[in-house]
Amino acid sequence: MFITFEGIEGAGKSTAIEFLVNYLQAHGYDPVTTREPGGSALGRRLRSLLLDVRTTGLASRAELFLFLADRAQHVAEVIRPALEAGQVVLCDRFTDSTLAYQGYGRGLDTEYLRSLNQAATGGLQPELTLLLDLPVRCGLERAGERNRAAGIAIAEGRFDSESIDFHERVRQGYRALADEEPERFAIIDAAQPPEDVVLQCRSAIEAHLRRRGRGLD
Amino acid sequence: MFITFEGIEGAGKSTAIEFLVNYLQAHGYDPVTTREPGGSALGRRLRSLLLDVRTTGLASRAELFLFLADRAQHVAEVIRPALEAGQVVLCDRFTDSTLAYQGYGRGLDTEYLRSLNQAATGGLQPELTLLLDLPVRCGLERAGERNRAAGIAIAEGRFDSESIDFHERVRQGYRALADEEPERFAIIDAAQPPEDVVLQCRSAIEAHLRRRGRGLD
Repeated sequence: MFITFEGIEGAGKSTAIEFLVNYLQAHGYDPVTTREPGGSALGRRLRSLLLDVRTTGLASRAELFLFLADRAQHVAEVIRPALEAGQVVLCDRFTDSTLAYQGYGRGLDTEYLRSLNQAATGGLQPELTLLLDLPVRCGLERAGERNRAAGIAIAEGRFDSESIDFHERVRQGYRALADEEPERFAIIDAAQPPEDVVLQCRSAIEAHLRRRGRGLD
Repeated sequence: MFITFEGIEGAGKSTAIEFLVNYLQAHGYDPVTTREPGGSALGRRLRSLLLDVRTTGLASRAELFLFLADRAQHVAEVIRPALEAGQVVLCDRFTDSTLAYQGYGRGLDTEYLRSLNQAATGGLQPELTLLLDLPVRCGLERAGERNRAAGIAIAEGRFDSESIDFHERVRQGYRALADEEPERFAIIDAAQPPEDVVLQCRSAIEAHLRRRGRGLD
């Protein structure tokens, strides 16, 4: 079972994943949590390059290929082995991030990005994607608070510091992707208090399992 | 004028470029020398990842995307601005390296690699490519000597330490590429002594300029 979490900065993906790990463990599953960029040793080196505001002047296509390098290594080294071992994989950002950020956000052709995603993943697709959707200003405010609290304003800043318009395009991009594949996406109202967000995520996973004819105890 | 230098490890590309810079300067040109990977600040960080033998377990496609990220940034930041400023650019490895190493060497589909090269370069192609061709064992011996002399056995080693068969496929790949585009490629016999190699490179550039209706003083 491969579940991905998508959404703009500050949507609460990490909090939701943390909660769901405990929930799945309590029901006898053995979940692996991972993220992009940064799910492999190579990826952690690329993550610091990609998210650091000190990385200036990065060409859109160079940025794109770095994310794809991260993904190719991540799938080969972490995700596929975990899925083959029968584990549940919860991944913070995956192929839809490329479509939303580099496609809708930066204006690269989304059909071409799909073919690159296909090359990077060898065709691996999530069976369920939780889109944590909320207004851009609300997300950026939360991301700013989180970064200040963690003292990582610089390390996490390159995307946070993009314009409101950029994040708005990313948000609308995500919603368009969810509209195209309603059977894969569950849209979560992430403007709710965190405890309600995690409950909505849990319901979406339970509904998915019921559709698949599986259940939780 | 955009000239690239290709060939297996130890073919003598750096020596040839060094000589040609002096030669072009003496004839009133203002050449820029650069290389892949590592022609930009981003690229220098990627170069150490890509060539370091301590980078183990790199998935073929992750490697490919890292080279493409290096190239996209290199073209945008270094090569295009230099060409637009009217400079001659001499580049140690470019798109043909991807076809030879990741295509013929690692077995990735060369037509697909061409489309990725196109995306990374925005369609920029060298007008002349000097292929420094020599037997694999001879090249690897030279590369080993060079690395030992410079004390960089580790830093330069990930490709040097591939099998003889791998390098043989790369060499034959380069020759196939040159056969496909005889008007762009000049094959240089790099098994000759270095002074003869550089003279043959010089002749190839002169012949190219004559064909283009330009000359050197």
